[in-house]
Amino acid sequence: MTHRIAVIPGDGIGNEVMPEGLRVLEAVAKRFDIDLSFEHFDFACCDYYAKHGKMMPDDWFEQLKDFDAIFYGAVGWPDTVPDHISLWGSLLQFRRQFDQYINLRPCKLLPGIKSPLADRKPGDIDFYVVRENTEGEYSSVGGKMFEGTEREVVIQETVMTRHGTDRVLKFAFELAQSRPRKKLTSATKSNGIAITMPWWDERVVAMSGNYPEVSVDKFHIDILTANFVMHPDWFDVVVASNLFGDILSDLGPACTGTIGVAPSANINPEGTFPSLFEPVHGSAPDIAGKGIANPIGQIWSGAMMLEHLGHKEAADAIIDAFEAVLTEANPAVLTPDIRGQGNTQTLGQAIAERV
Amino acid sequence: MTHRIAVIPGDGIGNEVMPEGLRVLEAVAKRFDIDLSFEHFDFACCDYYAKHGKMMPDDWFEQLKDFDAIFYGAVGWPDTVPDHISLWGSLLQFRRQFDQYINLRPCKLLPGIKSPLADRKPGDIDFYVVRENTEGEYSSVGGKMFEGTEREVVIQETVMTRHGTDRVLKFAFELAQSRPRKKLTSATKSNGIAITMPWWDERVVAMSGNYPEVSVDKFHIDILTANFVMHPDWFDVVVASNLFGDILSDLGPACTGTIGVAPSANINPEGTFPSLFEPVHGSAPDIAGKGIANPIGQIWSGAMMLEHLGHKEAADAIIDAFEAVLTEANPAVLTPDIRGQGNTQTLGQAIAERV
Ligand SMILES: CC(C)[C@H](C(=O)O)[C@@H](O)C(=O)O
Ligand SMILES: CC(C)[C@H](C(=O)O)[C@@H](O)C(=O)O
Repeated sequence: MTHRIAVIPGDGIGNEVMPEGLRVLEAVAKRFDIDLSFEHFDFACCDYYAKHGKMMPDDWFEQLKDFDAIFYGAVGWPDTVPDHISLWGSLLQFRRQFDQYINLRPCKLLPGIKSPLADRKPGDIDFYVVRENTEGEYSSVGGKMFEGTEREVVIQETVMTRHGTDRVLKFAFELAQSRPRKKLTSATKSNGIAITMPWWDERVVAMSGNYPEVSVDKFHIDILTANFVMHPDWFDVVVASNLFGDILSDLGPACTGTIGVAPSANINPEGTFPSLFEPVHGSAPDIAGKGIANPIGQIWSGAMMLEHLGHKEAADAIIDAFEAVLTEANPAVLTPDIRGQGNTQTLGQAIAERV
Repeated sequence: MTHRIAVIPGDGIGNEVMPEGLRVLEAVAKRFDIDLSFEHFDFACCDYYAKHGKMMPDDWFEQLKDFDAIFYGAVGWPDTVPDHISLWGSLLQFRRQFDQYINLRPCKLLPGIKSPLADRKPGDIDFYVVRENTEGEYSSVGGKMFEGTEREVVIQETVMTRHGTDRVLKFAFELAQSRPRKKLTSATKSNGIAITMPWWDERVVAMSGNYPEVSVDKFHIDILTANFVMHPDWFDVVVASNLFGDILSDLGPACTGTIGVAPSANINPEGTFPSLFEPVHGSAPDIAGKGIANPIGQIWSGAMMLEHLGHKEAADAIIDAFEAVLTEANPAVLTPDIRGQGNTQTLGQAIAERV
């Protein structure tokens, strides 16, 4: 069975890390005898948008909907296209239209990557943030009244549904149950956001009835962010609404020093539509073109994609490979951001060889 | 001129740290010849609520409105009164009814207090979070539809007004202008929360016209929390909506290791109503009654109160005093949370003597 992958390198360093992501995928596909086929798309600010004045052709949905996954680099080039146009015209379209209602991000302390936290070593921090990815605080409902006057009022509604909430909770509980610690933490703010969040808490309690082995706790988002810094070892799986998950899934990788190398998955668990796998970092115009971007975020995203496609062993082989290369810490191989003298290609090659 | 202060020690360790807060205020009042009068109120779960089944008498507004300030310990005793009842029946009432629309919290690395961040020393981190304290995401507008069914929809509205937004921005710009670095950072999420937050950005730009000396930048809340951990030295004054400010003003003190000793001010800048000064920590039922709570949060809140009442020099004397005691680090004086063998009183006394 062939897995058909749509490849969207995007802008800036997206074009530099993508070849390394593909190189490692090809190596692991060979070793584990997995059949992957790649088709490239030029949906980027500096490419499709530059030629056609929009991020994607009108039939993008038709073109992409039958792929098994989307492997995405980084889109954005603020000098020519404002972020809200490039993002709502691409990434956020995929999340909504392909109903990728799970955003999943690992927060893991890696060998050889300096964490801003004191006294933490690999193994101490290893958890997932599961974020609701389609509704909640990111709604388009609301508006302005008395616009432009002293009396101006601006309203935006947070819209949560049982359908949308229960399915992300279910995914998070399943994930927690599959892990050794079987621990789920819910991000809430029911002491302040007094309509939606107490209801969120109730849904967590209701869902927990189906997972008696999973131990559940909750923290208000303010003290939860504090605990990410003070006690990151407490967490195993953290589930959160769209906005809280957005915050926690940047803060988590920041605490492990991996914001430049963290991966993320936008998943449609039923497989009705393709899921999308992308590094957390952006297109980084400041270092684009220099060939020094760290490709691990793209490579790690490839591992998440393989796991999603049912190849857990191959995914683990990729993770083992980059952890081994990081542990070895050969400066000639590593990129400058992790104290090496190498470049995007030397690091990508070393990981591919290790696979 | 006498400053009339309403004193509400509250529950748990609130009752233990409050006497030390008052002791230090009395010492500094003597030294600087300031006339303070204190009147005590028993508005607490384990006191007024236990006797009357509500947090405060019906005429609390009348009783308190003519004081010059409220000095507040910590309210809450979840074993007998659920948090949303104690908090909405007390602290959140004061913030709204007394129009304390500024929540101000310093984030400062102190001598002798261990920060969870690696390689940071006192002086490296020293900024304020200015939080909007009355509207925004903490609204009571919204509700449920199809309740209890699979189709359930829950909506809560974020309500921002120009009146409410401009006044907190003005306060933050004034504060930034009064500080040597003159730098203001706005917390936003205009790339995702696409109605209220782009408008917030516009108000920041509009207000910045009045403060040409203040340099302004903005970060989306996700990467801003990451930057609190990675680059806390970047910040001078950070201004944020109610929810974002709530998050940042716990995360900031967490990064400096001071969440147990940080102070906060709920300010009505016009002085129409009393402002309220409280430590960030809660009533801490787990250590209540042991006499080991660290009183610095209460004492530091007293300093913020004096500054608000126009006695900046006296406020600085308190801060200098506890910084000196922390630098000295005499274990017989310090509380156990900061590696001492002393107790709440020994630490309070040492600081009062130093004043
Ligand atoms: C207790 C809670 C409602 C409150 C808030 O969110 O405002 C608290 O977290 C604070 O920051 O004072
Ligand atoms: C770019 C932005 C709209 C997006 C989000 O908030 O979802 C990003 O922060 C992310 O986490 O992928």
